[in-house]
Amino acid sequence: MNPIVSGTYTDLYQLTMSQVYYLTGRQHRPAVFDYFFRKLPYDGGYVVFAGLGSVLQMLEEFRFTPDDLDYLKSIGLHVGFVDSLRDFRFRGNLFAAREGETIFPNEPVLRVEGDVIEAQIIETLLLNIVNFQSLIATKAARMHTVAAGRVLCDFGLRRAQGLGGYHATRAAVVGGFTATSNVKGAQDFGVRCVGTMAHVFVQGYEDELSAFRAFAEHRPENCVLLVDTYDTLRSGLPNAVTVAKEMAQRGHRLQGIRLDSGDLAYLSTQSRKMLNDAGLDYVKITASNQLDEFVIKSLIDQQAPIDVFGVGTSLVTGPPDAALDGVYKLSVLDGKPRIKLSENIRKTTLPGAKQVFRYFGEGDVFLGADAVAFEGGAAPSMMHHPYEPDKSLDLSAYSHEPLLHQVMRDGQTLDTGLSLKDISRYSQERLRRLPQEYKRFYNPHIYKVGIGEEVRTERNRLRKMYKN
Amino acid sequence: MNPIVSGTYTDLYQLTMSQVYYLTGRQHRPAVFDYFFRKLPYDGGYVVFAGLGSVLQMLEEFRFTPDDLDYLKSIGLHVGFVDSLRDFRFRGNLFAAREGETIFPNEPVLRVEGDVIEAQIIETLLLNIVNFQSLIATKAARMHTVAAGRVLCDFGLRRAQGLGGYHATRAAVVGGFTATSNVKGAQDFGVRCVGTMAHVFVQGYEDELSAFRAFAEHRPENCVLLVDTYDTLRSGLPNAVTVAKEMAQRGHRLQGIRLDSGDLAYLSTQSRKMLNDAGLDYVKITASNQLDEFVIKSLIDQQAPIDVFGVGTSLVTGPPDAALDGVYKLSVLDGKPRIKLSENIRKTTLPGAKQVFRYFGEGDVFLGADAVAFEGGAAPSMMHHPYEPDKSLDLSAYSHEPLLHQVMRDGQTLDTGLSLKDISRYSQERLRRLPQEYKRFYNPHIYKVGIGEEVRTERNRLRKMYKN
Repeated sequence: MNPIVSGTYTDLYQLTMSQVYYLTGRQHRPAVFDYFFRKLPYDGGYVVFAGLGSVLQMLEEFRFTPDDLDYLKSIGLHVGFVDSLRDFRFRGNLFAAREGETIFPNEPVLRVEGDVIEAQIIETLLLNIVNFQSLIATKAARMHTVAAGRVLCDFGLRRAQGLGGYHATRAAVVGGFTATSNVKGAQDFGVRCVGTMAHVFVQGYEDELSAFRAFAEHRPENCVLLVDTYDTLRSGLPNAVTVAKEMAQRGHRLQGIRLDSGDLAYLSTQSRKMLNDAGLDYVKITASNQLDEFVIKSLIDQQAPIDVFGVGTSLVTGPPDAALDGVYKLSVLDGKPRIKLSENIRKTTLPGAKQVFRYFGEGDVFLGADAVAFEGGAAPSMMHHPYEPDKSLDLSAYSHEPLLHQVMRDGQTLDTGLSLKDISRYSQERLRRLPQEYKRFYNPHIYKVGIGEEVRTERNRLRKMYKN
Repeated sequence: MNPIVSGTYTDLYQLTMSQVYYLTGRQHRPAVFDYFFRKLPYDGGYVVFAGLGSVLQMLEEFRFTPDDLDYLKSIGLHVGFVDSLRDFRFRGNLFAAREGETIFPNEPVLRVEGDVIEAQIIETLLLNIVNFQSLIATKAARMHTVAAGRVLCDFGLRRAQGLGGYHATRAAVVGGFTATSNVKGAQDFGVRCVGTMAHVFVQGYEDELSAFRAFAEHRPENCVLLVDTYDTLRSGLPNAVTVAKEMAQRGHRLQGIRLDSGDLAYLSTQSRKMLNDAGLDYVKITASNQLDEFVIKSLIDQQAPIDVFGVGTSLVTGPPDAALDGVYKLSVLDGKPRIKLSENIRKTTLPGAKQVFRYFGEGDVFLGADAVAFEGGAAPSMMHHPYEPDKSLDLSAYSHEPLLHQVMRDGQTLDTGLSLKDISRYSQERLRRLPQEYKRFYNPHIYKVGIGEEVRTERNRLRKMYKN
């Protein structure tokens, strides 16, 4: 079977446009594209940037297979052009925010520099991977910010959007999850893999106690007993206590019980009490069943003694938002800055190769202001509102740092040595520095993204020029 | 790189449970599982069953790679059990509704028969693929039912949930789409591949006319000009008309123009007029930009002269619903019928290996009643409400047909010879037979799914038995 991600993992128009560039000798025009998103998901205050590591790996491996080339000829693309794709590699440069960075609308967090053809052909893959992983990492981070240190597990593969579940597991970790039931995801991304039994296991025995005993005997490590098949408090808990005591006599410890239905606040409180009364204070309580950030927050607010949350559908598909609206826009062609005009000035893009600076307030927290400036220039000491000419902000008193760093040179990833765990730690550390008012679920404060003087002048010059 | 779908594309608990079955000599217990969903997406009246072809292919190829086995040992699974997975194949039987069938809540549309281990290990994959493709095929069908014969194209890959975009393209075709911009999807599933130019192409030239001319010269086949980069009616259309006339002189025909912003009803009407006035009535109008079934219906209601709709995010991610809630429940173990009890009788499952019968009213339309009966038994002439003892429906006057057919025997797919186009035609033909009141978007009529006398008796007997 052909790999799913190869040269044809793209939109056809990338190839038809490239064909025309090729046939008119324009294929080597140098270009710069920016990736940014416009609308915050979840009516929230931030996005967690994710997917970069996947994109870098996929770009290095991105090739047209012989089958791909045959297919492209079969649908009428120019034979000479298709043959030129035989040796296609992405050989450009990428500059990006660190994966896990807290990012905001309309700031370029990824910059691609390359020939116009290579930069176009990879657009679809880049958007597909970064839009999705950033959406899911953001959803995961929302749960992490309210979970108050409890363990978060991804249980979503069966309800994921097909093969999208694979990268959902990775993105969940970027946002603060530490375990998954998805074996393939755990294997490929180095995530802790968890899971013990389903209701069907309990049903397969004459009674619940026999099922628990069989499991505890033959899989004593990380044993978590599912206690709600018949009656959580009258059957599941007493049987779990019995088995936990039997395990203790054999030198094992029951790791936990899992609640998967009913009122999780009430049942976890009662279960904790029954376990503690039996001297089993070390047995953890896992809860699952239709959880999302609002249910988790409510359970924590009610002081439900839940140690581990297992989250499925709402984590791996990110509802109510189905997609992050990230786009990929041309900012330089043939060495000249470019903009895309729009009737709506909010949709007019920013020209030139750019850098983003983040400013810090007291105690090293984010000030709530990022400024977009030209690459190679100084950090702006004054930042302008991108659309409202009268609004500006004096930043001269604040420290700052650049967000974009080179991550790929001539098609080769610059190894950062960072593991997915490191990325997750970075994401949490950055969110810790984002003041609370940007993290609340209802009407969060709006983080300001402005533009430096030079970018503003150049954008306005080009706007005027194109309008004439 | 390892394939994404291999033996570890599953939830860990499938393997820990299987380990216990293996170590207790229970691995060959014969089992039957049912797939069904409970809640209709979109507050709609039906679901289009999709993903079966993908599942069959993936099940035939499902293997644990040497890397998979090493990984499973590394996370502490029993060595003997893991070694037994080296030769794992799915060798069971599958019975299913035809792909593209119109299906309803709580009827088993897929039945898996096999050893308990093989039937469990494949659960996650089966749910992952069928839940997602059925969601997307249903979304696509909703658009198809209102598009009144216009062409529907999938433009969604960049906004899809990661690799989920791959199968979204396939599911869209099951629901009535006939083309896609996703080259890989077109290639692997035999779908017509479409796409010509993005705004960035137009921006790369000094002016719009030069861009259009370059494109028309070097890619005259299926040439669709994007006319909204600067000003649709004052620039895009006049330039498209000029180029269409130049193409005609060279013996080519401009295939179409594409509108990607603004008021699509107004702009398409004006564009059609301008094209017709120039003698270009053969030039088609494509519209894209945030379309969904409601916008398409509104445009059709306004008689917007749009020939082709290009749909992205709302097609490939299926909002506002993120997932179909399909489940996989044990119905027979060791030859004995099983049920899963629940406090909620609506969630109590139906025992035994089952068949579903569909009944027909006058003119061969669906009567609006499906009955679940035991496999091998007669179609019920009386159907009972599954939960309300007093409600039943006399079906003796109606013709009927069974919905489930064997599709896999001993792990081998029974080739139906059906292409994806055939499946799409079947889906449309079945939806045509579903009366209109089940297809409307607001408060659709509720299609009845009931149970035969024998299934009811057996379920009630088991309920009583388990309750004691």
